[in-house]
Amino acid sequence: MSPAAPIRPPARASAPAYRRLSVEERRTQLLAAALTLFAHRAPEEVSIDDVAEVAGVSRPLVYRYFPGGKQQLYEAALRSAADDLEQCFAEPPTGPLTERLGRALDRYLAFVDEHDTGFSALLQGGSVASTSRTSAIVDGVRRAAADQILAHLQVAEPAPRLRMMVRMWITAVEAASLIWLDEGKQPPVGELRDWLLDQFMALMTATAASDEQTATALRAALALERPDGCAGALARRVLPVVGDAAHLL
Amino acid sequence: MSPAAPIRPPARASAPAYRRLSVEERRTQLLAAALTLFAHRAPEEVSIDDVAEVAGVSRPLVYRYFPGGKQQLYEAALRSAADDLEQCFAEPPTGPLTERLGRALDRYLAFVDEHDTGFSALLQGGSVASTSRTSAIVDGVRRAAADQILAHLQVAEPAPRLRMMVRMWITAVEAASLIWLDEGKQPPVGELRDWLLDQFMALMTATAASDEQTATALRAALALERPDGCAGALARRVLPVVGDAAHLL
Repeated sequence: MSPAAPIRPPARASAPAYRRLSVEERRTQLLAAALTLFAHRAPEEVSIDDVAEVAGVSRPLVYRYFPGGKQQLYEAALRSAADDLEQCFAEPPTGPLTERLGRALDRYLAFVDEHDTGFSALLQGGSVASTSRTSAIVDGVRRAAADQILAHLQVAEPAPRLRMMVRMWITAVEAASLIWLDEGKQPPVGELRDWLLDQFMALMTATAASDEQTATALRAALALERPDGCAGALARRVLPVVGDAAHLL
Repeated sequence: MSPAAPIRPPARASAPAYRRLSVEERRTQLLAAALTLFAHRAPEEVSIDDVAEVAGVSRPLVYRYFPGGKQQLYEAALRSAADDLEQCFAEPPTGPLTERLGRALDRYLAFVDEHDTGFSALLQGGSVASTSRTSAIVDGVRRAAADQILAHLQVAEPAPRLRMMVRMWITAVEAASLIWLDEGKQPPVGELRDWLLDQFMALMTATAASDEQTATALRAALALERPDGCAGALARRVLPVVGDAAHLL
């Protein structure tokens, strides 16, 4: 800051300043306040007054931007969170598959960690704020995740079996996230990430056993894996356990 | 039938016979009618008149037994279906694990097949008939399934990791059931059953790689498997696919 710059009194920053924000900025500010609240409380425990207070504005101003009240704010916040989450899945198509998927999982689990209560309330259902529109938003995120994974597997036209496997893994990851939140975020997030990756490779392998398209995708993925990576560590740790079962071969 | 036995006119069997059924028999009959309807339609598409018609009784009689109307009938039918489903999971603790689990899966998938539309409506959520009570019933079935599997794994005090794995597989099986119904019951049910078993063994193996309790349970389970069984077939089919990945070892 140059010595000549005017110094604003600190009080000014937190005082209401209705006219200084554009419509878009005000909307963004209200949404941010709603997101913060809905992330850490069940929708039942958030009121328009709470949103107004966190945003430092009046209750009528919230209604001017969101005439549908809390339900409209909830859906807008969910839409915004869903967009953020879909961004998490994007990864350049280079390097070992488990490293790409591992980075996406790191970002996803950070999102779950940051939106804990809201994430549980949303996915456990039974909330009055759950509607066919909120279900459609959640399903859209699941579809985006599945499409990303299938793109990284470089399967041009995924057949039902591989699609189903990817959707089952995504569902299992959601279940794990809910249990993880429920159990006080145990095991540590890095362990959970590695285990979910191991499960993905295990499901790919089990599916490859009876599906040629999955087998082709798995061979291509394994060829790119490094010995010191996740797939190598899994292979070396699995061998001694299944080694005793030579009578099955 | 002896020649002397009185022959009842066929019309008598389908005519209303209000006084001949005991309270318990009448309740069972109404529940059976409700179960048939809720199995093949979304709860929104079932009315008390439908139940009365299928049971061959009057609308007031249905209300006499179920004063809470459709919601009470729905919850009673769900409770009854949940009890049936929990029975499906019971298996004597002998023989290879994949055979026990395979028989339980056969019965579970037959249940899904028989209750198709109702099963989808219940688990996809968003129905007005879904309440915290219906969620509790569904969660109870999931818990019963997990307890059965853990009992068959002969783990006296399952640690969080193994419990979490079992719950994740159960969630994945539910997801597979919904996708299977959505895709016109494809693949054939026997293929789906075998694949779900393969996935269970794969998840056990991936989890055994980082969890000693799961490793012990897996070794014990594999020792009981037969070469011509599910685990043997999986092991032999997996080897050629992962055989190319020797660079990871």
